[in-house]
Amino acid sequence: MNIICVVAHPDDMEILCGGTLARYAQSGHTVTIAVFTDGSMGDAVIKPAELKGIREKEAHAAAGIIGAKVIWGDIVDEHVFPDAAQRLRMIDILREADPDVIFTHSPNDYHPDHRYVGQLVFDAYFQKGLPHIPGQQKPACRFGQAQVYYMDNLGGIGFSPTEYVNITETFEIKKQMLSCHKSQFEAMKDLADTNLLDMIEVQARFRGMAAGCRYAEGFTRLDAFQRGLTSRILP
Amino acid sequence: MNIICVVAHPDDMEILCGGTLARYAQSGHTVTIAVFTDGSMGDAVIKPAELKGIREKEAHAAAGIIGAKVIWGDIVDEHVFPDAAQRLRMIDILREADPDVIFTHSPNDYHPDHRYVGQLVFDAYFQKGLPHIPGQQKPACRFGQAQVYYMDNLGGIGFSPTEYVNITETFEIKKQMLSCHKSQFEAMKDLADTNLLDMIEVQARFRGMAAGCRYAEGFTRLDAFQRGLTSRILP
Amino acid sequence: MNIICVVAHPDDMEILCGGTLARYAQSGHTVTIAVFTDGSMGDAVIKPAELKGIREKEAHAAAGIIGAKVIWGDIVDEHVFPDAAQRLRMIDILREADPDVIFTHSPNDYHPDHRYVGQLVFDAYFQKGLPHIPGQQKPACRFGQAQVYYMDNLGGIGFSPTEYVNITETFEIKKQMLSCHKSQFEAMKDLADTNLLDMIEVQARFRGMAAGCRYAEGFTRLDAFQRGLTSRILP
Amino acid sequence: MNIICVVAHPDDMEILCGGTLARYAQSGHTVTIAVFTDGSMGDAVIKPAELKGIREKEAHAAAGIIGAKVIWGDIVDEHVFPDAAQRLRMIDILREADPDVIFTHSPNDYHPDHRYVGQLVFDAYFQKGLPHIPGQQKPACRFGQAQVYYMDNLGGIGFSPTEYVNITETFEIKKQMLSCHKSQFEAMKDLADTNLLDMIEVQARFRGMAAGCRYAEGFTRLDAFQRGLTSRILP
Amino acid sequence: MNIICVVAHPDDMEILCGGTLARYAQSGHTVTIAVFTDGSMGDAVIKPAELKGIREKEAHAAAGIIGAKVIWGDIVDEHVFPDAAQRLRMIDILREADPDVIFTHSPNDYHPDHRYVGQLVFDAYFQKGLPHIPGQQKPACRFGQAQVYYMDNLGGIGFSPTEYVNITETFEIKKQMLSCHKSQFEAMKDLADTNLLDMIEVQARFRGMAAGCRYAEGFTRLDAFQRGLTSRILP
Amino acid sequence: MNIICVVAHPDDMEILCGGTLARYAQSGHTVTIAVFTDGSMGDAVIKPAELKGIREKEAHAAAGIIGAKVIWGDIVDEHVFPDAAQRLRMIDILREADPDVIFTHSPNDYHPDHRYVGQLVFDAYFQKGLPHIPGQQKPACRFGQAQVYYMDNLGGIGFSPTEYVNITETFEIKKQMLSCHKSQFEAMKDLADTNLLDMIEVQARFRGMAAGCRYAEGFTRLDAFQRGLTSRILP
Repeated sequence: MNIICVVAHPDDMEILCGGTLARYAQSGHTVTIAVFTDGSMGDAVIKPAELKGIREKEAHAAAGIIGAKVIWGDIVDEHVFPDAAQRLRMIDILREADPDVIFTHSPNDYHPDHRYVGQLVFDAYFQKGLPHIPGQQKPACRFGQAQVYYMDNLGGIGFSPTEYVNITETFEIKKQMLSCHKSQFEAMKDLADTNLLDMIEVQARFRGMAAGCRYAEGFTRLDAFQRGLTSRILP
Repeated sequence: MNIICVVAHPDDMEILCGGTLARYAQSGHTVTIAVFTDGSMGDAVIKPAELKGIREKEAHAAAGIIGAKVIWGDIVDEHVFPDAAQRLRMIDILREADPDVIFTHSPNDYHPDHRYVGQLVFDAYFQKGLPHIPGQQKPACRFGQAQVYYMDNLGGIGFSPTEYVNITETFEIKKQMLSCHKSQFEAMKDLADTNLLDMIEVQARFRGMAAGCRYAEGFTRLDAFQRGLTSRILP
Repeated sequence: MNIICVVAHPDDMEILCGGTLARYAQSGHTVTIAVFTDGSMGDAVIKPAELKGIREKEAHAAAGIIGAKVIWGDIVDEHVFPDAAQRLRMIDILREADPDVIFTHSPNDYHPDHRYVGQLVFDAYFQKGLPHIPGQQKPACRFGQAQVYYMDNLGGIGFSPTEYVNITETFEIKKQMLSCHKSQFEAMKDLADTNLLDMIEVQARFRGMAAGCRYAEGFTRLDAFQRGLTSRILP
Repeated sequence: MNIICVVAHPDDMEILCGGTLARYAQSGHTVTIAVFTDGSMGDAVIKPAELKGIREKEAHAAAGIIGAKVIWGDIVDEHVFPDAAQRLRMIDILREADPDVIFTHSPNDYHPDHRYVGQLVFDAYFQKGLPHIPGQQKPACRFGQAQVYYMDNLGGIGFSPTEYVNITETFEIKKQMLSCHKSQFEAMKDLADTNLLDMIEVQARFRGMAAGCRYAEGFTRLDAFQRGLTSRILP
Repeated sequence: MNIICVVAHPDDMEILCGGTLARYAQSGHTVTIAVFTDGSMGDAVIKPAELKGIREKEAHAAAGIIGAKVIWGDIVDEHVFPDAAQRLRMIDILREADPDVIFTHSPNDYHPDHRYVGQLVFDAYFQKGLPHIPGQQKPACRFGQAQVYYMDNLGGIGFSPTEYVNITETFEIKKQMLSCHKSQFEAMKDLADTNLLDMIEVQARFRGMAAGCRYAEGFTRLDAFQRGLTSRILP
Repeated sequence: MNIICVVAHPDDMEILCGGTLARYAQSGHTVTIAVFTDGSMGDAVIKPAELKGIREKEAHAAAGIIGAKVIWGDIVDEHVFPDAAQRLRMIDILREADPDVIFTHSPNDYHPDHRYVGQLVFDAYFQKGLPHIPGQQKPACRFGQAQVYYMDNLGGIGFSPTEYVNITETFEIKKQMLSCHKSQFEAMKDLADTNLLDMIEVQARFRGMAAGCRYAEGFTRLDAFQRGLTSRILP
């Protein structure tokens, strides 16, 4: 299968979906990570022009660990809007991956870039298969596939997972991937007094307790017309 | 009364609201069907420039069966956005009909055009009665009327009707109207393996079972300030 | 039509449903008020044995104003439970009224007697039409009728009405009915620092603001199989 | 695996879960059908003492088609209560099946017996594995298993399935099983003007439309501590 | 503390939050009122160019009563959109106040300007503390503060307060502030048959009944990552 | 203030509310812990008659650490029902504490004893102040107090806290209290493969992440008539 995880910023995938993607990769599926923005605003000191390059390198390093492809959306950080231009970009991203499974941010996330990336994915997933939409760089891909799963959020605010993936076997890989984002360890410490590795340890353990395993990642499924069968495609 | 049904594409009205509009028409009310987009992207083979003309004719043919007026919104298919320009267009559409009752798509529909048409209706229904909004083609209409009802969606995903209209007497008319959309029978077969007449038969029977009649269409009401009295105006 | 309002205590009907019942009565419908408990615990000083008689008289006086019949359930106040014995009692109450419309307390009401009366009504409304249930005093009534509406609660805690009845014309009658419950004016003052007439004035005005009239009472409808058609039977 | 479906009345399983159980049976799993009441009140003419025997035979005939075992709960029809005695009965039923998967009625079902059977299952599923509960006829079974799924209801009132099982291949078997309940075809016609085979055709087609297949049955999952992993055990 | 109330139109603050802001002001906190639009469309007769000036004066007069600062957003009335330009404006407004507490409109409000002001506040509150966002007029303020509270709406449509502020002591001040908006008394009478002082009397009394005091204003809290502690900062 | 925590089993308080009660105790409030059942079924090997005594001693030891009083409900473990007899018991428990704040289990907890204890508290809290209820051992206490808070559940299944108490300073005390329940460490290991100290570490850290502190306990508030003011009484 083709798996795509569409996130707003470099490190969002590693925090919210890394163990699950590692399991797909281990099973031989094709994994694509689409980072929609350039992450250039995510530091209180380093200037955007410089930070952007750093974060793109970090994203590629992390993806390399599981052999995933990176699509770099290159939208300016903190500037995601569900408008016509970004819709075109999102449709092309999905077309490039031709996905069977899509992971993205959930609607009530605290960060506006997260919320609007999720909205753009929901808007684009139907249109990726229509051949006549003008302005697209990529040809239409399959119409009917693409189960959409929403990822957990930090602290699980208002989020009750209905799907839990057991990531006990891949939790170390998740940590390695996250560790590639060196620039964010300092930034999260300064801005939010948060240790990133500690944070994912607590969240994966908590979701694991609910699921019945040591480490888990939680998701909800976007219910949609003709996408409902129980033959789950989560690992 | 003045009834308007605002849908995204030709055939949406017939599928989700046709039996109800037929009942209004039979009772002598004035029925308007606003098709917001040109439906030009709805086929995998026929080109938009050609398809657009076909679908406009099909929409008029269907509306003609119940003597309804058609407003052709002419927004490019798959390009509905709740922005300033389309808001102006929607306000004028509502002003032209001066409605007592509005039907439109519900917020969690699977299609982005459906969701944003519903959002534009909610945004515009308050402003249709304000006389000084710049850029409008039509004069302000009545301020205080306009009950808004959301229509069902395909497969009833996440939709629990709170209102059911008995369409047993008009179900044949609903089928005739839908049958005017010849171009879509092929397209839905190709894209979604769906027979349209079969689909509305099943959906109307299912809603009828819940309602206590043979065929029904389901709706929810948009609760709003000063729009709450029980003197229902649904047929 | 036959209308029944099933409440836990004398004065509940007047506070939550009085204006609506007055409208039914004015239209010539048959109105029955079922008071499930004897109201005997509702005072900090007067003993239950004495209070019970006072409250039954007050209930009859209030019902008399709109020509309604009273069914006195005679369950001990503060002792409503959804058990087998009280289920039998409730089924007989409904059979006696053979209702087209039932009003009762909503599930999240603050008072346990209110919650369990509502639960007993939901449990009993299906069984009132089954002829072979042992232990019933009354013969089975019609099976298929009986729309159930839940009444508002004090302060509208967690209650969003979906139906509003305009009681502007009957609000004075509602006040007269409530005024018959002299024993409760003192009790509510002592226990909850509340003036009853003032309380219903505020609540009916607030619901009226939402509805678009001066005074209103709010309700929700219990959705149920084959009870869904839009031909509302509320006044 | 051990599969159990706990329903209130004979024919509930066939209507709401028959195609799914047939799939389990075809895959070689052990299927148990627990009918909690004797179904004795389900006719307007035939007396309970007689009807009870008829319905037990019908239930066994239906179960025989898929080689399922029947547990006959023998609680008097229309008399399900979540009390201590019926709790003991439900715990023993679950212990007898030692289930990996449990199907039962959902909380907002229209019928009180359905609601309370579902409540008893939720109450009992934790206690089936505790060895010291007094009064049990059966020894404790495994503690940790037992995923609970709630079944759809008639007309899908307030029910949004999150799981859909494709029953296209077993729909004929579902119809055969339901056809064994001859006594109910007449009763449902009289009481609710409903043709049972027609009803399941419409409901399974509607759920199939949402799921993306011809016939489906819909379910929700009872989320519970340590029961969350995505390795679905639905067919 | 720094308190800001961001509303769409002059008089929204007075109606929905005035008593609460008066309490903050009395306690010595710094109160800012941001009126996002110019209110120029809010009359059926007076032209926008003239009305705008009138309403700005009224807003300053009302704010003056409690010594609050006014930020005049100057977006054209009825033209609020959650786009890039208005996002920049909203970020600067929040930066100017550097708030500990933010009040704004709730998501399901009946007026589109209200809904989109609330959305812009949710979008902007994270970004007010990021120093490198281009195009801002104001320097970044504190990153971590800013509890967000949603205000009630007219008639309480679909709004269940989880926080109630006792405004019994400041209700007279709330009335005085609202009385400064002379232009709106006529407009609301004409358009919606509503007396503004009467409206706030009923709404504050109703919320007070629920809360357990004479007059109250109701709110809900926007749950967000790292903003959860119970040490409430409401008066 | 008088604080009471009503739980089903010994150790429930320590797991779900211990850090919060420790804070109350440190502030000089009077803390009561009501253990409704005897916990006698909570082991796969030790017999109920023996286990009961062990667990009562463990409960007193834990309570002693914060100087809290224990009320031993003595209902047989796994036998909580919201019936008349247990209602009387619960009313007396509340009367004995005369509480300003009540903590108890939330409605969707996985354990039936938990759910029914929560229901009994909700049923009893109104009646504790009524002087004439027959069969009570204790005199009526204050009528109007008693804010009710629901506690979190294991794994946070379907539970979104709206209140978070910072227990960073009392987390060690919470661990000491839980450590008194030696009998349960073995039992939870056997039955659910769970280390209790590890479990509360993960849950308190996760809730702390959401709240913005190191360790937190999460709650929701039961909204009720005249119990709404924002002057929170949580520590």
